[in-house]
Amino acid sequence: MASENPFLEALPTGHTRGDFSREEVALANRNSGIALETLRYDLTPVGLHYLLIHFDIPHLEADTFRLSVGGLVARPLSLSLDDLRALPRRTERVTLECAGNGRGQVEPRYQSMPWSYEAVGTAEWTGTPLANVLTAAGLDERAAEIVFYGADRGFDRHGEHTYGRSLAPAHALRDEVLLVYEMNGMPLLPQHGFPLRLVVPGWFGMASVKWLERIEVWDRPFDGPQQTPHYHFRTVAGEPGTPVTTLRVKSLMVPPGLPDVYTRRRVVERGDVEIVGRAWSGAGAAIARVEVAVDGVWREANLDAPMGRFAWRGWKFHWRAEAGLHELACRATDIDGNVQPLDPVWDVGGFGNNAVQRVQVMVR
Amino acid sequence: MASENPFLEALPTGHTRGDFSREEVALANRNSGIALETLRYDLTPVGLHYLLIHFDIPHLEADTFRLSVGGLVARPLSLSLDDLRALPRRTERVTLECAGNGRGQVEPRYQSMPWSYEAVGTAEWTGTPLANVLTAAGLDERAAEIVFYGADRGFDRHGEHTYGRSLAPAHALRDEVLLVYEMNGMPLLPQHGFPLRLVVPGWFGMASVKWLERIEVWDRPFDGPQQTPHYHFRTVAGEPGTPVTTLRVKSLMVPPGLPDVYTRRRVVERGDVEIVGRAWSGAGAAIARVEVAVDGVWREANLDAPMGRFAWRGWKFHWRAEAGLHELACRATDIDGNVQPLDPVWDVGGFGNNAVQRVQVMVR
Repeated sequence: MASENPFLEALPTGHTRGDFSREEVALANRNSGIALETLRYDLTPVGLHYLLIHFDIPHLEADTFRLSVGGLVARPLSLSLDDLRALPRRTERVTLECAGNGRGQVEPRYQSMPWSYEAVGTAEWTGTPLANVLTAAGLDERAAEIVFYGADRGFDRHGEHTYGRSLAPAHALRDEVLLVYEMNGMPLLPQHGFPLRLVVPGWFGMASVKWLERIEVWDRPFDGPQQTPHYHFRTVAGEPGTPVTTLRVKSLMVPPGLPDVYTRRRVVERGDVEIVGRAWSGAGAAIARVEVAVDGVWREANLDAPMGRFAWRGWKFHWRAEAGLHELACRATDIDGNVQPLDPVWDVGGFGNNAVQRVQVMVR
Repeated sequence: MASENPFLEALPTGHTRGDFSREEVALANRNSGIALETLRYDLTPVGLHYLLIHFDIPHLEADTFRLSVGGLVARPLSLSLDDLRALPRRTERVTLECAGNGRGQVEPRYQSMPWSYEAVGTAEWTGTPLANVLTAAGLDERAAEIVFYGADRGFDRHGEHTYGRSLAPAHALRDEVLLVYEMNGMPLLPQHGFPLRLVVPGWFGMASVKWLERIEVWDRPFDGPQQTPHYHFRTVAGEPGTPVTTLRVKSLMVPPGLPDVYTRRRVVERGDVEIVGRAWSGAGAAIARVEVAVDGVWREANLDAPMGRFAWRGWKFHWRAEAGLHELACRATDIDGNVQPLDPVWDVGGFGNNAVQRVQVMVR
């Protein structure tokens, strides 16, 4: 049973500027991001990895869980968690970021989850390559898209639906695309998709369907609300737009020194300061350089050794801090020559904002 | 070295109404609360327990960690984590709530972390009773307060300081007050106070000092910023006020049915609906009753078996849902006769708001 949203009249129309609504704040309270100082850890501590939960966190039981695989396949499947655990095991270290990260800084603003910088995290995800299951089911030659449905269901401006996303078969069959049952060596937590989720390395988080229950093979494009109206880059509302896919090049720093509780501005002792941070880009696009600006003057940072094809890369910058008020910023460039913009690029849904991070610092 | 806040001019003066500032939203993004649907779990899943981090999460190493105990004691101590683990072990199941929970709904509003309902969680905390360490150190007869300092430091409107709180000796010596090194059977996570924290069952969260490094025994009242200007109930700014101490009676429900993503309003199928939730009160004050109101008509809910002296108590309510728009609310009463107010009680700092939760539901 699907139906229109009975609360449509309560939803914002158009974009806004300035202060934030009670609903945006309730979403910010409900969803959670990393604390920027934990960028110092290669792997985000469990429980600080960002969470964007569209509907509610479903309660699923491991014992009765089944993943169904149907549609254009030779052998429809119904797999238990043990069936999936019996398949070849693979671990990928993956940086995931919400496509809406930075939305709160795009003006005028689409009213949704108002992230500043925090919707990112890196974990070791363990499961079996999706390809093992698709091969066991036998993809029909007419297969045009693989559709993934979670157990989460609810309403948005497009009415009632179950969370669903799709991938092209060539992408779905890539080795690194995993059916995941462990995060950092432990069973998935309820909020991260227990007992099973998809992880699509190199892509924004909306592709990594949580609480995955059903895979359908279609002979035509998938047009669910989370695929076609949602998660597209658009410069004008209503245009078809471009699908949101791989991560955009981005970097973040650990704000140095001591914070002010409310403004999160910083106080730093004069002298030698090591600024550390992380940088990442989309599937396969390694980080080529990171620069740090002090008061608008850009200088090269040093890159740490890579952590893996799909994980962020650490960097360090030595700053000889002099007394006074300063603005710090960081900016990454990937091997394809993509570089972070200095200011947010306008997007209707507030997606993919990878503008440089800026931190206000008083050196004493 | 302590000093004034160089960003004082950027801090809000007085109270506000209506929409929320960019700084309030950044705090909501940075701190995290439970998702209300996870109230169904006796213990809050790791990583969904609420977090209120005043300054930054400090990075501490277990190997080099020391807890110092000094001031008016017979034998000053410097204890390693192994020393603490060698002391008698005790586990307490404790519901913690932020004193600022509900601040975002008090009008006019003090601008700080703008919680709605989410700043609560229940965990099993394991460590050794603080009394074991205080007894080993030998409290001087002049001991008037026990002061606890964390490793976290920063600025607020009271200038630079290390996070510090105190307890009276009689309270500090109670069996249930723990020096904690495990949460839900695992080492503390960085954001929950690794490697050591205080847990003060029955009190609001500000008393449970994280990243605990130093205990000092004083012969006079502790007047640190987190003790005296902060965390007091006040009806007029600047008055001495009353210290924030034990939890106030409160209840929350799991919002039934399916959510709308933005408004978090609910759609429920008509017929039999089981509404479940949790209720708690301050130290030793058990829950006596929970009532649920449908459109303002209150009826009794059924209480689950207690989970422990310091943990929330589950409850269930059967609702025969009829088509249309309804407002649900829940209200707890404790054995001392304290009952939740229908509307927020004004407080200068927005502390202790235990007004009833209200949920808008469309039954179809």
